[in-house]
Amino acid sequence: MKNKEIKPKTLECHVEKMFNIIGGKWSFLIVKNLFSGTRRFGELRMNLHGISPKTLTACLRSLEFHGILTREVIPTIPPEVRYTLTEKGMDLQNVVNQMKIWGEKWSER
Amino acid sequence: MKNKEIKPKTLECHVEKMFNIIGGKWSFLIVKNLFSGTRRFGELRMNLHGISPKTLTACLRSLEFHGILTREVIPTIPPEVRYTLTEKGMDLQNVVNQMKIWGEKWSER
Repeated sequence: MKNKEIKPKTLECHVEKMFNIIGGKWSFLIVKNLFSGTRRFGELRMNLHGISPKTLTACLRSLEFHGILTREVIPTIPPEVRYTLTEKGMDLQNVVNQMKIWGEKWSER
Repeated sequence: MKNKEIKPKTLECHVEKMFNIIGGKWSFLIVKNLFSGTRRFGELRMNLHGISPKTLTACLRSLEFHGILTREVIPTIPPEVRYTLTEKGMDLQNVVNQMKIWGEKWSER
């Protein structure tokens, strides 16, 4: 398996498939932010301390591509862009809840 | 918050703290591999299709540093290195199980 050789899908387990869809920390933090409802780009940027606009844009584009969220452009001046989780995205709540429980229990130990 | 400015711990939520401890996909796949018991470096490399020795070494070192697993050197010739999850590591099973459930339900949709 040299460098960027594409690994046959059949070798990927469900956990790996999930990561290949969602990505890493920032994507999960974006999803977590959207559990409570639709957010604008600026709101997400404000809530996600330390994320760069470039990373936020890339994560949102990937999450949209994988059907985790939808993107809606409101034709105001300037135009407003809103992001909303799909059912597929909302269904990540159990994963994120278990992450919270683990983080709360172990992160200071 | 310029580039690599360290974000105050208090701003990190439990999910972010968890990611800052565990890391991303490869670390979770290593942990998942160790749920069923102690593994040698070579066994992990074989089970984790597509991971480079360099990435595996870096992930194992970080997981050891964060108390997720222990590393034991057996003085055979050549010496053997074995990795075992700690209680903190084993406690990630609920997170990984929810990832599996989500991946199984949504990865082909």
